[in-house]
Parts: sequence; C-alpha cells; structure tokens
Amino acid sequence: MKKFVFAVVGALGNVGEEVLNILEGIDLPIKDLILMDIGQNIGKKIIWRNKEYTVVDSKPDSFSGVDIAIMSAGSEASKELSPRAVELGCIVIDNSTAYRMSPEHPLVIPEVNAHELLNHNGIIANPNCSTIQMLVVLCPIHKKYNITRVIVSTYQAVSGSGFVGTDELKRQIKNVSAGEKTFSSVFPHQIVLNIIPHIDSFLENGYSKEEMKMILETGKILDPKIKITATTVRVPVITGHSESINIQTKKNFKMNEIITLLANSPGIEIEDNPEKNVYPTPLSSSGKNSVFVGRIRRDFSETNAINIWCVSDNLRKGAALNTVQIAQELINRNLVRVR
Amino acid sequence: MKKFVFAVVGALGNVGEEVLNILEGIDLPIKDLILMDIGQNIGKKIIWRNKEYTVVDSKPDSFSGVDIAIMSAGSEASKELSPRAVELGCIVIDNSTAYRMSPEHPLVIPEVNAHELLNHNGIIANPNCSTIQMLVVLCPIHKKYNITRVIVSTYQAVSGSGFVGTDELKRQIKNVSAGEKTFSSVFPHQIVLNIIPHIDSFLENGYSKEEMKMILETGKILDPKIKITATTVRVPVITGHSESINIQTKKNFKMNEIITLLANSPGIEIEDNPEKNVYPTPLSSSGKNSVFVGRIRRDFSETNAINIWCVSDNLRKGAALNTVQIAQELINRNLVRVR
Repeated sequence: MKKFVFAVVGALGNVGEEVLNILEGIDLPIKDLILMDIGQNIGKKIIWRNKEYTVVDSKPDSFSGVDIAIMSAGSEASKELSPRAVELGCIVIDNSTAYRMSPEHPLVIPEVNAHELLNHNGIIANPNCSTIQMLVVLCPIHKKYNITRVIVSTYQAVSGSGFVGTDELKRQIKNVSAGEKTFSSVFPHQIVLNIIPHIDSFLENGYSKEEMKMILETGKILDPKIKITATTVRVPVITGHSESINIQTKKNFKMNEIITLLANSPGIEIEDNPEKNVYPTPLSSSGKNSVFVGRIRRDFSETNAINIWCVSDNLRKGAALNTVQIAQELINRNLVRVR
Repeated sequence: MKKFVFAVVGALGNVGEEVLNILEGIDLPIKDLILMDIGQNIGKKIIWRNKEYTVVDSKPDSFSGVDIAIMSAGSEASKELSPRAVELGCIVIDNSTAYRMSPEHPLVIPEVNAHELLNHNGIIANPNCSTIQMLVVLCPIHKKYNITRVIVSTYQAVSGSGFVGTDELKRQIKNVSAGEKTFSSVFPHQIVLNIIPHIDSFLENGYSKEEMKMILETGKILDPKIKITATTVRVPVITGHSESINIQTKKNFKMNEIITLLANSPGIEIEDNPEKNVYPTPLSSSGKNSVFVGRIRRDFSETNAINIWCVSDNLRKGAALNTVQIAQELINRNLVRVR
C-alpha cells in the first residue's frame, strides 16, 4: 500500500497535540511525519511512536515532499503557507477560518459530506468545533425529515481558546480556591464561577463571529435553506462543548424513530436515560471520539419539533479528529496524488 | 401608618438569609419580625437592624399574630404550615412549589401580574427562579407584540440548590485546585469544570420538573397560548442564573423599539454593548436586584424573532426579592387585613 508523508503544522498547540495523539493510535499509511511550528517551538523534541522528532520552522517552502498537511496554526499562518504548499503537491487540511467559506474549497465533516472531497483544490477546510458536533446530529435528521428551523445555545469549553484558555481557567481556579483576587487576560471577564456570552469578536449585526460560523457553515455544509440562529457562550469547563438544540422538521416523526435513526448514524453515541442520571456531560465526553446525544425529547409546544442535548470533545471531533478523518477519507478515496 | 408583624420561615436557608438582607434595607412598615426554622436552627441568634432575634420552631400554631409570612422552607413544610397560618389570619407568601399551579392561589411577579393579588386566598405563590427573570423580560414584549413562541436554554447557578449546593461547588473547587479527587453528593455528577443538563427530577415525558415549571408557570402567569419549551442546565456558578431566550412574536417590530421597550420596563436593566465586552454575566449581576438583559439581536432566520441573553440573581429577583415585592404590593394595595 502506498504510504504518505504527513506534516502537522502548529504541532505544539492544543489541537496539534491532539492530532499527534490520534495519529499515534490510528491505522494510517504514514511514511514520515514532519512537525512544524513557529518561534520558540522550533527545535523542540517530540516523541511519537517511540521515535524522537524535532519541530521545524513552518515556512511556505517547508512543504516540499509533504503529501498531507494538517494545519492548526491560525488563519494568518494558513493563508501564508497553504498556497505554496499546494503548489508543492501537498494537500492541506486546514483547521482555521481562512478557507471555510471560500466557494472553491470544500468544508468537510466526513459523516456529512465526504463526497465533496472529490472537488477539493488542494485545500480542505475543517469546520468550526461547535458546527461539527451539531451537524453530525442534524445531518441524519435532515436527510430523513427535512429540517426547517434550528435554534442552538452553546456551553463551550475554554480549550477552544487554546492552551492559553486552559491555563487561564486553571490559574483562576487556584486563585479563587486560595481566596485571592484573580484577573483575566485571555477572556474578557473572569471565567471561573462565571458564564460569558461572548466567543470570538462581535459583528455589526450583534452576532459574534462564532455564532455566524455556526449559521454560515451549516448553510455551506448541510443546507442553506435551514433557518438557523445561534447563541454561543463560554463556560468554565476545560474540554467538551455542550449544545442545547431545538430542531423543527417538515415531515412528521415518531420519537422512537428519531432515537433509532441517531443511534444508527455514524459518529453518534446515545446516552439518554435521565432518570438514572445518564446524559452526556463535558467530563464524561472529553478524551472520546463520538458526538454524545441525550435528553432527546419532543418539543410539545410546536409541530414536529424536538430538543436535543449534544456534547463532544472540542479538541477531538471538534478539531483534531475531524482533520484526521478527512485525511483518512482522502486516502481511502485515492484522492492523494501518488508522486 | 399601620405596621405589620412579619415572619420569615426558613430564616437560616440561603433564600431566608437574603429575605432578611432585603427587609433590612427596604422601607416596609414592620412592627415585629419573627424568625422561624427547624431542627438545629431553633434557638440560634440573628442580628437584624442591630437587634438580636432568636429563631423559633416553625409549627402550624406559630403564626398566631403574624400578618405576613415569607416562607422558604420547601414544599412539605409549606403544605403543613400554610393552611393553619391562613386560619390564624396570616398571609403566606410561599417560595415553594406547593401552591404554584393551584388555580385558587395566584402566582405573582409584581412587574407582570400584581393585579392577581386581589384574588388571593391567604396564600400567594412565588414562581420558580428561572421563570421569574424570563417573564420580567417576556411580559412587556408580549403585551405589545404578542409572543407566539419561546425557546429557552438556561445556565443555572448552584445556589438554586441551597447552601448545600454552594458548599459542594466550593469544596469541589478546593479539591480540583489541590489536584485531589473530588466527589458529588448534592449534584448527580461533579459540577466543577462540568455542565449538567439536569435540575430537579425527571418526568416520564423526558422533561425535568424545572423545565416543566418554566413552561407551566409561563402559562399561568403570562399566557397559556404561548408555545414554549425549555432546557434547564446546571453550571459551576455560585449565584446568578443566565438564560438564552429565542422569542417569536405575531406583530412586527423594529429592533430599536424592542430595546426602548425593555429599557423602560420595570425591573429590567439593559447591558448591551458587546463590542465593549458589555453584556450581563452572573458575576456582574449577583447581589443586585434587576433582571439584566443584553445580546439583544434579531433572529434573522425567522419572521419577527429575536435572541436575548438575560441574567439575574436567583436568590434576589429569582426568590427573596420577589417575595418581598409581593409583600410590598399587598401593603400598598391595602390587602393585608388590619386586626
């Protein structure tokens, strides 16, 4: 079997670290692995599958000989590096916002729209974390019952802001526990013992960019005819985004049909026995690969409506795992060019 | 001016404590104050307005001579104490679920339906915390634009479970901060660094009692024709419930009309300048009396729909303050019988 050279860009970030964890345990034809990062991270050593790798500088010409690059280095880095990487024959799977809404580049969740990989132009965009877990759930429902409207409120973990977000929450916990005053630098307000309805920056229409990502990416990936609105909220949780989703469909359903449908859909695990305290939580979901779904109930107030509670590890399915699954699909579909 | 004898029942609970704080600072014609509780709390001393009070046992006959009792001692205690208290000429303002859905007893938020106090039968029920703050916001919008549908997701503080909830979160923070294992006794799962979509117990229809309270109490207080569904969620916050509310109306509106309407409605303070990081949070709202509203935006996906973020101190407007405001209204409307 043909083997490929992989690059992980932003290898020392929290998503990059998770990409390496996942690649370590997965059966992919990896010929060689090149780890890239910037600044002080260059030259650092990482052990992967019992072998030491040295982190190299991520520059446009660094991608010579690389077949697949998984890039989690932010939008600016991606715009700087990706075009040249593609010229050099590399396929870029990009975890930033840089190419998500570009009509020339597919935005892919393998369980939802893997077929769009056929039209890639060298760059495949990885959707926003909160979009991915929601669409894994919405897709099977939409295909069978035709979703007309979605209202989602999120409960998003601090690791969505990278290691600096996690460090800030941990420091604030220590401060509060010691009875000390705390301060905020990553988040606009104290996050421990608090809730902040603010992720990414705000637009003139009053929505945050995070909210608009959920709305626009749903349109691009699933169906632009779905009426969708979102409120995205940061909570004092390390890892695991939770979502309260209200869904309305055109076609009738029975509740047991919805539950069976979700239980048999790829990437989903049902945890739904609330009387026994069984429903997904961030703590029970983090470190795992599935999108966990519970509290599945009919919204009795509206025709063909349901409420769903959905939790997933934002660094895994919300980021690293989805990029690796895209790489897997590209290889399985023979879409990586053989040199 | 006529003065009245007040009793605070459950005086040593977290709502009772807040009732005493509020009564201390408010201009009410209080002739005497009787503090009641049970068990080990009997005999304890409390300083109120520089005078020492001794907590007495709450028994049905304890209400002789009491004009207004503010009861925050749970549903069982309320059912045991209230009928005899009423026989003894006392008006009971009850903070439990015991009488909320009883058709004979009004369920009152003064800003919304103070007129229903005219038909009280000795007992006035105080609504659920998460209902109160939501309806303070929905009422003016419903009166002017006719609300047809509401979808609410909550972010509720641990103090909603009493001092034991607060103590559990504080202990868990200390455990986690020290790198120790922690355990849960009040909540069904660890609450620090976690999110639990479970408040009160679950019903056969998959809803929690907390969710059904929001639905049924909205019907009783505001309008049973409003289609409403709720998902109620516990978050690691000490005090201050947050709510993400999607509202649809029958009549058209301009967004600036909604904002002006809310800004001029009783009990509401607008905090809405997200670009300057201004929106309500639990930390900024706790210890205050208003319902704080921000992130007011049109839901562009649906006709006549808006998203609103609403935060209030669950022990104040969500509980203690509302009971005291009911007492105030009763006195102002001459509804407390003069002995």
